[in-house]
Amino acid sequence: MGKPAPVSPLAPARFPDLPVVEGVRFATHAAGVKYQGRDDVMLAVLAPGSTVAGTFTRSATRAAPVLDCQAKLGGASDAGAAILVNSGNANAFTGKNGVASVEAITKAVAATCDIPQARVFTSSTGVIGEPLPHDCIVDVLGQLNAGLSADGIKDAAQAIMTTDTFAKGASASVEVNGTPVTIAGIAKGSGMIAPDMATMLVYIFTDAAVGQSALQSMVTAHTDTTFNCITVDSDTSTSDSLIVGATGASGVDASESVAFLDALHGVMQELAHLVVKDGEGATKFVEIAVTGAASDADAKQHAMSIANSPLIKTAIAGEDPNWGRVVMAVGKSGAAADRDLLSIRFGDVQVAKDGWRSPDYSEEEAAAHMKGETIVIGVDLGLGGGKATVWTCDLTHGYITINADYRS
Amino acid sequence: MGKPAPVSPLAPARFPDLPVVEGVRFATHAAGVKYQGRDDVMLAVLAPGSTVAGTFTRSATRAAPVLDCQAKLGGASDAGAAILVNSGNANAFTGKNGVASVEAITKAVAATCDIPQARVFTSSTGVIGEPLPHDCIVDVLGQLNAGLSADGIKDAAQAIMTTDTFAKGASASVEVNGTPVTIAGIAKGSGMIAPDMATMLVYIFTDAAVGQSALQSMVTAHTDTTFNCITVDSDTSTSDSLIVGATGASGVDASESVAFLDALHGVMQELAHLVVKDGEGATKFVEIAVTGAASDADAKQHAMSIANSPLIKTAIAGEDPNWGRVVMAVGKSGAAADRDLLSIRFGDVQVAKDGWRSPDYSEEEAAAHMKGETIVIGVDLGLGGGKATVWTCDLTHGYITINADYRS
Repeated sequence: MGKPAPVSPLAPARFPDLPVVEGVRFATHAAGVKYQGRDDVMLAVLAPGSTVAGTFTRSATRAAPVLDCQAKLGGASDAGAAILVNSGNANAFTGKNGVASVEAITKAVAATCDIPQARVFTSSTGVIGEPLPHDCIVDVLGQLNAGLSADGIKDAAQAIMTTDTFAKGASASVEVNGTPVTIAGIAKGSGMIAPDMATMLVYIFTDAAVGQSALQSMVTAHTDTTFNCITVDSDTSTSDSLIVGATGASGVDASESVAFLDALHGVMQELAHLVVKDGEGATKFVEIAVTGAASDADAKQHAMSIANSPLIKTAIAGEDPNWGRVVMAVGKSGAAADRDLLSIRFGDVQVAKDGWRSPDYSEEEAAAHMKGETIVIGVDLGLGGGKATVWTCDLTHGYITINADYRS
Repeated sequence: MGKPAPVSPLAPARFPDLPVVEGVRFATHAAGVKYQGRDDVMLAVLAPGSTVAGTFTRSATRAAPVLDCQAKLGGASDAGAAILVNSGNANAFTGKNGVASVEAITKAVAATCDIPQARVFTSSTGVIGEPLPHDCIVDVLGQLNAGLSADGIKDAAQAIMTTDTFAKGASASVEVNGTPVTIAGIAKGSGMIAPDMATMLVYIFTDAAVGQSALQSMVTAHTDTTFNCITVDSDTSTSDSLIVGATGASGVDASESVAFLDALHGVMQELAHLVVKDGEGATKFVEIAVTGAASDADAKQHAMSIANSPLIKTAIAGEDPNWGRVVMAVGKSGAAADRDLLSIRFGDVQVAKDGWRSPDYSEEEAAAHMKGETIVIGVDLGLGGGKATVWTCDLTHGYITINADYRS
C-alpha cells in the first residue's frame, strides 16, 4: 500500500453550509508561522455580552496557550471576547518562551480589537518544542481585525488545519421559547496525527444567551460523552482545546433550555465524529456500545479498551469479525467482567453469548457487516445497568505510512 | 511493504545450547490440534520432590487452563509434577467445555505419568472461542510418556510456538554454596500476535532445591521487573502463563541464595527480551528507562505510556528522533510530571532538558542513534528517586500486514 488517500474516504462530500451566528465575526490570514501559501491564523471576535466556556486537555505537559485559557475561563465580563488560533506550531514544551509568546499575542489582540486581555483566548497547533515566532502573528493582527466578517467561519475551519485531510464543521438550529437560536462549530484534528504533533481544536458559537456557569456545565457534561468518547490511537495531545462562545444576539436565554442542551450535544457529537472520520489512515468508522456493565465508568473503561486495542483495530481494517480479540480487550481493561456472562454482537449479528460463541452465530453474516464503512461492536457484560458508547477508526497501513515513513 | 520477514530481524543467530536440568524430562508429539505436520504438544515431567511456582495473566477473561493452574499452585507435595502444553487452540472463552477439556487432559496425564492430578499443569495457546479437541491430545499421551528425554527442551520450545518466528530459550549456571546449579527456560509469544490470539508462555526449570513459597516469592518479584515490563502492542493475552519448576536434583538448597535469585532474574529477563524481539513486525528493540519519578510505580506508568504509544513506536520505525511525542506520552500517562523539569535522551544524546529542547541538542547525533537496532529512550522527571525500565519494539507495516491483511 502506498501513500494514504489525500482526503479520508470517510470525509463528508462537502463542507456544510454553516449558518451565520449573530455576534461572531471571523478573519483569517497567512502569517507564515510554518506553512507557506495558505492562511494559518484565525481570529474570531465575539460581541460584548458574550459568555465563553471551554474544556481542555488533562495532559500533565499541556501547552502554554492551554494553561492561559484555563486561567481566564472563569472570569465573567460584559466585554467582548476574542479567539486567536495559529496552525503550524503548537507552542508546547517551550518553557518561559512559550508563556512570553502567549503574553505578547494576547496583549496585541487586546489592543488591536479593543478587548480586555483577560478575554483574549489563544490556541496553537503543530510542531512542538519549537519557539513560536509570535511576531509574524502580531504583525498581521491589524489586517485580521480589518477583515472580520460574519460569514468567515468556513475559512476559519481551513486556517486551523494541520495535517487534517478535510475541514470540519457542524451546526444546529433550535427553538427556545418560540424563538430560533443557532449553533455553529468547527474542529480540526485527526487524533495525535503526524508528522509532528497535531491537536484537536474545537470552536462552537451560538447566538443564544447562556449564563457562563450554565454554559460551562453544559459543555463539561457534553464533553464527557462526545470528545472524551473518541480515540484514534490512544495518544493524548498536549493542546486539545474546546471553546464555546454564546453571544446572546438572538435575545433568547437558553440557560435552562433542554432543546438547546440537546442541540449543543448534537453539534459536539457531529464534530467529534468528524475528527474520527479524519483519523489517520482511517477507512472504517467504528462505534463501540457497551451495556450491562457494573457502572457507566466501567462501561467506558471497557469501551475504550476495545477502541484502543491495536489488534481489534487491525482486525476491523482486515474486515475480520475477530470477536476473540474483543474478549481479550474486555479482559485486560481492568473494569469488572465475568467471562461467562459476556455477550458480543457485530452490527445485528449475535457473535458470542453467555461466555461462548453464540449457538446461531453466522460467520458469513458477521463478515458481511465488517465489509461496511460503519462498524458497530456491541458488548453486554450482563452485570448491571452501566453503559457507554465510544467511537474510533481502524488501524491501517496508512497510519504507519503517515507516522513512520516520512521524517518530520 | 509486503509480507513481514519469515524470521524476525531481531532474532538471535541460533537457538542456544541449553544445559540439561537434572530431574526434568521432555517429550513432544504431533497431535493435530490445529497445525498439521509439526509437533504441537509438549509434555514436561518433573521428578518427585520438585517445587512449582508460577505467575499468570490478570485478565478478567482468562482461559480455563490458567484458572486450573492458579488453583493448583499453592499445594505443596512430594510427588512429581507434569506440564502439558498444546499449541493451535487456546481453550479460552469456551465455557464449561473448556473446564471439561482441562479436566480430561489433566486426569489422563495423571494416570499415564503416575502423578497426582493436582500436580498436573496445562497451558493452551492459539485460536480462542473454539472447543479444544482434547481427545487428540489424550490419544498421544502414551507416546509422549514413552518418549520422555532429559535433552528434549529444544523440541519443547518449538512445539509450543504458534506464529512465533523463532524458538526462544535461555539458561544460567550459578554456584550456590560452592555447588553449581543450572537454570534453563523456554518461552513462546510475540505479544498478542495474530492471526488469532497468541499468548506468552514461559517454562523455566532448575535443579536447585527451592522451597515452594521461596520460589513463588522469587518468581513473583522477578515477573514485575521482567515479563510485566515488556509490551509489544499493549494487548494482554487471556492465557499468559509462567511456570517455574525446581527439581532439587543438584542437592543444593538455593532458597536463600542471592546468586540464584540473580541468575533466575537473568534467565527471565533474557526470555522476556526474546519475546519482544519476536514482536510482530518488529525491526527495533527499544529500552525505555525512566528515572527521577515520584515513585517506582509512577516511573513504570510513564515508561509503559511511552512504550505503548503508537506515535512513538511508529517514529522509532521511521528512525525519527521525535522527542515531542515522548513529552506527549509523559503528559498523558496519568502519573506525576512537571513539564518544566522534564529531561529526555535518545541513547547518549541529551535531547530535552528542564522542559525545553536541550541547548546543545544535535539532531544529527539523535538521528544516528535511531538508525541502530537497539534504541534507548531515557526520561528523567526531576521529581524524586522513582525508576523503572521497560522494553518494547517498533510499530511497522509488518504489524498491520500480520494482523489486518490476512483473515484469521
